[in-house]
Parts: sequence; C-alpha cells; structure tokens
Amino acid sequence: MAATLVLHTYWRSSAAYRVRIALHLKGLPFESVPVHLLQDGGQQRSPTFAARNPQRLVPTLQHGDVVLSQSLSIIEYLDETWPAHPLLPRDPLGRQRVRALAQLIACDVHPLGNLRVLQFLERDWTIAQPERERWVAHWIDEGLAAFEALLGGHAHVGPYCIGDAPTLADCALVPQLYNARRFGVDLTPYPALRAVEAACLALPAFEAARPETQPDAP
Amino acid sequence: MAATLVLHTYWRSSAAYRVRIALHLKGLPFESVPVHLLQDGGQQRSPTFAARNPQRLVPTLQHGDVVLSQSLSIIEYLDETWPAHPLLPRDPLGRQRVRALAQLIACDVHPLGNLRVLQFLERDWTIAQPERERWVAHWIDEGLAAFEALLGGHAHVGPYCIGDAPTLADCALVPQLYNARRFGVDLTPYPALRAVEAACLALPAFEAARPETQPDAP
Repeated sequence: MAATLVLHTYWRSSAAYRVRIALHLKGLPFESVPVHLLQDGGQQRSPTFAARNPQRLVPTLQHGDVVLSQSLSIIEYLDETWPAHPLLPRDPLGRQRVRALAQLIACDVHPLGNLRVLQFLERDWTIAQPERERWVAHWIDEGLAAFEALLGGHAHVGPYCIGDAPTLADCALVPQLYNARRFGVDLTPYPALRAVEAACLALPAFEAARPETQPDAP
Repeated sequence: MAATLVLHTYWRSSAAYRVRIALHLKGLPFESVPVHLLQDGGQQRSPTFAARNPQRLVPTLQHGDVVLSQSLSIIEYLDETWPAHPLLPRDPLGRQRVRALAQLIACDVHPLGNLRVLQFLERDWTIAQPERERWVAHWIDEGLAAFEALLGGHAHVGPYCIGDAPTLADCALVPQLYNARRFGVDLTPYPALRAVEAACLALPAFEAARPETQPDAP
C-alpha cells in the first residue's frame, strides 16, 4: 500500500473536491495533477487522458498502476484500503443512510449541472446563460430541500450529517453547497445543511480541499 | 431480520428495476407496491409518499420500520444485511470497479433522462419530443461507450461485467440497456455490453425483475 496516490483534479470540480476532502480526512498524502476542463478544448478530452479514463471526467485517481474513476467509489476504495478515520459507519443502516445522502447529491443533483451538460444546452440548444443558471439552481434547490428534510431540518443534531465525525455524506454535501452559492441558490431554508457546512469548514481537511486553496485555482 | 421488505416501484423505472434484480438475485421475498409516476399528477408526489421519501422518487424500500432511498445504496444495504449471494467482490479494487461501473450509469447516464428532467424540458423550455429523445439518447450513448471501453470491448471475458456472478454493476447495466432500446440507441458498437446483457437475461432473477413481468405493467 506504499504506492503513490495521484489525483487528476480541477480546482472547481465538485466531484474532485469530494475526493480531496476524503484524502485529507484520512490523512493520505497525494500528488495533484491539474486537468483544466476549459483550456485546450478541455484537457480531459485529450487522447492521453481518455486512455486513462474513458469517461473523460475528473476526478481520476491513480494508485500505483491502477486507475480509478467515479468519486464516491474512489472514496469507498480509500476507506476500505486505509481503514483509519472511517468515512462510513459500521452498521448497515447507518452506511445506507450515508450512501443515500451522498448519492442524492452525486446522482440527482450534480450531474444536471455538470460542465458537459451545460455545454450541450449552450451549443446544441442555444439556451442562454440566465436560463442555464436557472436550470442548475432548480435541481440544486430540489435536491437540497430533500437533503434538509432527510436530516430533519431544525431537529438535526449534528455537528455532521450523520454521527460525530465527517462521512461520505459530508464529502458530497459541502462541495454541492459551494456550487449552490456559485449559482445563487438561497440557502436560508436549509438551516441543518448550513450548520453541517460550518462544522465541516472549520476542519483543516475541508480547508485544504477547498477550491480556492488548490494550486490550479486562478 | 425477519421484518417484511416492501418495495415501492414502477414497472418502467430503471432505478426500481435495479433493486428488483438485486432482491431476486439474493432470493429475498418482497412485496411490491406500485407507484404510478404518470397518473394523478405523479403518485410519487402525493403527501403520503413524500412523507416516506422526501425525494419523491422510486424505488423506495421499507424494511420493517425503516425507509430506504437511492437504488445503489439500497442494494448495498441488502448485500450487507443478507451476505449470501454477494453482489460485490471481496477485494477493495474489485469493489471499486463494480461500484464505479454502477455509478457511471446511476450518476452520469440515468439522471439526465429521468422523468422529472424530461418534464422540465417539455414544460419549462417546450423542447419537442424528438429533441428530448435525442438528448436522452446522447447521454446514454456517451455513457455506454465509456462502459464498453472499461470492460475492454471484444476482449471482455464475461459472462458478467466483473467476475463469474452478477454484481451491482450488472444490476445497473441491464436496466440502462432496456432504456437505451426505448430511446432508439444503436447497440451494435457495444458487443461486450450485449454479451453481458444476454448472460444476465438468461437468469431467472433478471427475468422476474423485467419491466414487462411486473404486476403494474400495462
């Protein structure tokens, strides 16, 4: 397990942000290789990158000779390979709840506002930017409302999504809230989410993973 | 663990189809409660259903008193609660590969063609049906091409996505191929996917889970 971890990342990719949080929470040293999603027609579309990850998406993690894709499954791999500082509870029901919250974000919110989707809306359908932003904000708002309800709103105990340490659910939520602010979503109706976010951002691991602290941030 | 399993399902929901496959593969008896996604303005939007699942999506699984959402995390819960007939390999790398394939479908393909998304395109943007279908087919095609590449194309060994028994990856792939046909995607370029699908559909568990064999199918 001494093989190097190399993360192909982009500072503002919220899926890469999830994996950065997990790596820092688990205290695993890694090398960052920036992939600029907007330069050179999208560096993730280069033949070199596509040979590594046929989906041509970040994050992509290299662990020695193996190449791993899909942020949530990368995080579970890290958690199973290095069990210290676990990112999932031990009991099946707790694990289900954590995974379901993470998947609410990763399956039902984030993909609809992804770069390739926004590029399709602009190029193929000439949807104007304000409408594209309304589209993204709509899906974020719908997802966050359900997430807030699942946490119980004002009744949520905290400090994190589930339990007294950050989990996979927090790794997914915090980057999505960052995106929500980018797209002007009003977070006032989500007190539980804002409290969880504040607790997370107070931790050094989340600080180190933030978009603005990445080497490729402008 | 003797509590009843109740699956809130819709015959043509591909996320519900995933969970039906898993339940049948694991030999777990369950009761099906149909939720008609198009009748009554969408039965999943009723207050009763929303109280059960704030995301107002199928599948939703009740296990005794607890309510579980998100198809992939439901399947992992079933797998952890009833370990016989495992749906994930034992080694972290194998588990990562299986989860990444399932998430490729569940995060990057299926959400873009989901009913609520197509309804938004129709109602808010009056995108015509042929264009909506082109949209769905576009994302399916992009995802299946990456899935095929990850399996190695003609070099794929099979009979299933990974290993010699169906896994979570097969639970995700087969319903997506069903959807691909619905939207007229040409599957000729995907020999590995078609071979895996044929192997799966030959199994009684997949037959029992098919949309057309559900009690709520028209």
